[in-house]
Amino acid sequence: MKGKPMKKAIWLLFVCLWVFDLPAQTSVELHQYVELARNLRRVGLNGEYAYTLLKELTALGPRLAGSPQAAASVEWSRQKMVDLGLENVHLEPVEVQRWVRGTEERARVISGRLGSKDLTICALGGSPPTPDDGILASVVEVRSFEQLEKMGENVRGKIVFFNVAMDRSHLRTFRAYGEAARYRVQGASQASRFGAIAVLVLSLTLRIDDVPHTGVVAYDKRYPKIPAAAISTLDAERLHRILSRDPAAKVFLKLNCRNLSPVLSANIMGEIRGKEKPEEIVVLAAHLDSWDLGVGAHDDGAGCVQVLEALRLLKHLNVPLKRTVRGVFFMNEEFGATGGREYVHSPNRKSETHIAAVESDAGGFLPLAFSARTDSTGLKKLRRWLPVFTEIGIHRILPGGGGADIGAMRRWNTLLIGLVPDSQRYFDVHHSALDVLDAVHPRELELGAIALALMAALLANSGG
Amino acid sequence: MKGKPMKKAIWLLFVCLWVFDLPAQTSVELHQYVELARNLRRVGLNGEYAYTLLKELTALGPRLAGSPQAAASVEWSRQKMVDLGLENVHLEPVEVQRWVRGTEERARVISGRLGSKDLTICALGGSPPTPDDGILASVVEVRSFEQLEKMGENVRGKIVFFNVAMDRSHLRTFRAYGEAARYRVQGASQASRFGAIAVLVLSLTLRIDDVPHTGVVAYDKRYPKIPAAAISTLDAERLHRILSRDPAAKVFLKLNCRNLSPVLSANIMGEIRGKEKPEEIVVLAAHLDSWDLGVGAHDDGAGCVQVLEALRLLKHLNVPLKRTVRGVFFMNEEFGATGGREYVHSPNRKSETHIAAVESDAGGFLPLAFSARTDSTGLKKLRRWLPVFTEIGIHRILPGGGGADIGAMRRWNTLLIGLVPDSQRYFDVHHSALDVLDAVHPRELELGAIALALMAALLANSGG
Repeated sequence: MKGKPMKKAIWLLFVCLWVFDLPAQTSVELHQYVELARNLRRVGLNGEYAYTLLKELTALGPRLAGSPQAAASVEWSRQKMVDLGLENVHLEPVEVQRWVRGTEERARVISGRLGSKDLTICALGGSPPTPDDGILASVVEVRSFEQLEKMGENVRGKIVFFNVAMDRSHLRTFRAYGEAARYRVQGASQASRFGAIAVLVLSLTLRIDDVPHTGVVAYDKRYPKIPAAAISTLDAERLHRILSRDPAAKVFLKLNCRNLSPVLSANIMGEIRGKEKPEEIVVLAAHLDSWDLGVGAHDDGAGCVQVLEALRLLKHLNVPLKRTVRGVFFMNEEFGATGGREYVHSPNRKSETHIAAVESDAGGFLPLAFSARTDSTGLKKLRRWLPVFTEIGIHRILPGGGGADIGAMRRWNTLLIGLVPDSQRYFDVHHSALDVLDAVHPRELELGAIALALMAALLANSGG
Repeated sequence: MKGKPMKKAIWLLFVCLWVFDLPAQTSVELHQYVELARNLRRVGLNGEYAYTLLKELTALGPRLAGSPQAAASVEWSRQKMVDLGLENVHLEPVEVQRWVRGTEERARVISGRLGSKDLTICALGGSPPTPDDGILASVVEVRSFEQLEKMGENVRGKIVFFNVAMDRSHLRTFRAYGEAARYRVQGASQASRFGAIAVLVLSLTLRIDDVPHTGVVAYDKRYPKIPAAAISTLDAERLHRILSRDPAAKVFLKLNCRNLSPVLSANIMGEIRGKEKPEEIVVLAAHLDSWDLGVGAHDDGAGCVQVLEALRLLKHLNVPLKRTVRGVFFMNEEFGATGGREYVHSPNRKSETHIAAVESDAGGFLPLAFSARTDSTGLKKLRRWLPVFTEIGIHRILPGGGGADIGAMRRWNTLLIGLVPDSQRYFDVHHSALDVLDAVHPRELELGAIALALMAALLANSGG
């Protein structure tokens, strides 16, 4: 035989062996996880225990960072982790900003020609109060920061009304949120820069209703800190109509929210120790603090109880784990994810290696995918697990981020993964009085917990 | 050059050309549909017009086949199709069974030792009434037809209580429904066969609550037609507990539902005529009739308004269509899909060729997939369209059925396709008083309409 065909044949044989061996090896292992997925589904969906946990957690009330209810929820979480038989259950301190809504938040549009009307509003997180007798001022409605810049000093002494809606045409509503949220986050300081004395910001929701949605404001220290409130979408339409017909209409605004001294709170964690490499950690993450208008059932009570339920399911089914799976409830995501930063700086982390962290902080809706902060090779590897996830209705691993709380682990090159649930209904309730237990569906919530359990098992037992 | 390598090279070239040409051709065409998908998403999600339509339709009340409200909904549908500017809008007659619930449905468990308790029930569709003074009888609880067979004549003169729950561990709840529904459908006749005088059937839902769920009974003409009612899951648990402790407990049952003479109703249809092959038809299907306890918002008001909205979107965007796209609202799906059979037997069908029919009858929830009644080659062809559907969040084409109404088109070898929405919440409301407008989400509903529009355009313009 000639040399070249021989070489080719050997090469071909090698490629064939490699190609056929790879899936064969993989499928043997995956087969066990397919079985695990079915067991998790059976036990999880029959028990719907995540929902039972969420009922308990939300019964404690809203968990605004620094509030007595947040403190109660820290203790509840610690106790639940102990009850579940987790190891190394402990708190790690997190100092949190303490903002309180106060007892009064009112707005009213007053037009000489068109009469007066109360507006449904809520103070935005971190806003200072108005003077005791409120603010009465003309209103300038803007649709962009560019428009604000053009107006410049014309807004001095006035209230700026950021009337920028979330774009309904996005399939993923988080994208629409991301685009519009900058007016809530930066609007107050941008307006203050030109001398405005308060801002009203259109609520971040895709519904037209009379429910205002709060959220954090990032005040720029260079400019005076002015009061900021969200207005409901329905009243924003009304205010827009009135201002169109009577630009001289004024708005009266009264807020008595205030910033108090920081208080000490905590991240809460507990784990199932790995049998082979216990110092290598897979984190399941959520944040325990919530906004104060609802009870944070979706944001992020859902994530917390999914983490608990995932750990319970792994223990219940005696799933063998080579590495440690640790549940962490982070404190103070809503005011800047400070708990996430404290976690990575804790001296407790020194002897640990974090191979992966999986966060659930996008609502307790039907899980559709995971997103992972990795390159195409990493995605390809994760996608080899899809035959397992298909068993629980997850068919996609997408490029993307993990979550705000675990973001600080980037410094370690930890693989950051986010659970991606259906997002169509999330912003109906997000940061509002509608974020209550009734808005969460037991099966959808449980499927998220099952997804976390499965991902944790695969990560803890794979090469990392 | 030698002959063999030459042949190989030519063969390889041929394969390469074929392989690379195929996606190239496809991608040019698909590119237009990706653009269409984005436009549909933008216009659809900004307008949420399907929800506006559903609000109107559900305001007419429940649409039980043969009822005055069903007649009103037929007229509403015809008028809407005319208003949309559809062509060839007309009704085709369908004779429907007329069953009415009556004014009274009561059940009470009576135990000498444990006292009495009212039970939440509802008559099942087609059930005869009880005698005027009701039925008072012992109860035999069974968990399967096998168990019933074993008891045989022991059930004579008694009420059989089919206490068979839907299996919560299935990801697709329709599968759980399919397994448990036979006790509702066949239970009465199976029990009557052994001399039972009435049946109580556990409601088909995955929730534990006090809401009974109705549905059709198929009475077997060989056995006496006995009264049949569904019991809420919560009261089924109570009844089970009482019977466990006091097997002598009796149930009193009073129903005054009845079967009246059949009445004439109609299928309603309207179309956008194809520009090249108008006699070749793509049907978009839903059923207009509903159960009487809610207002059939999901089942199948959602499907109807999605069909209307899909046609509206296609017209609004001036989508060129080679073949005719016809919207059909079928009558009387709930009592045996007779409208679907009348449709295929109508003389109007003689000059037509039905290349495909797409039904939406699984609730107005987030669309996740399509199912298609075809072989693996057919599936492969349809899956080439996935880059288009991905734009609206649909990533899968599954083997499966189309829907009850279009099932009769099998005789024509029509490609039957079903829209597959998320099913986790469907049976919470299905056939119950909870199936109301509030249970439907505007964006989820609209995405289903967009999916139908897109599929209709692809089918109408493809080879078929």
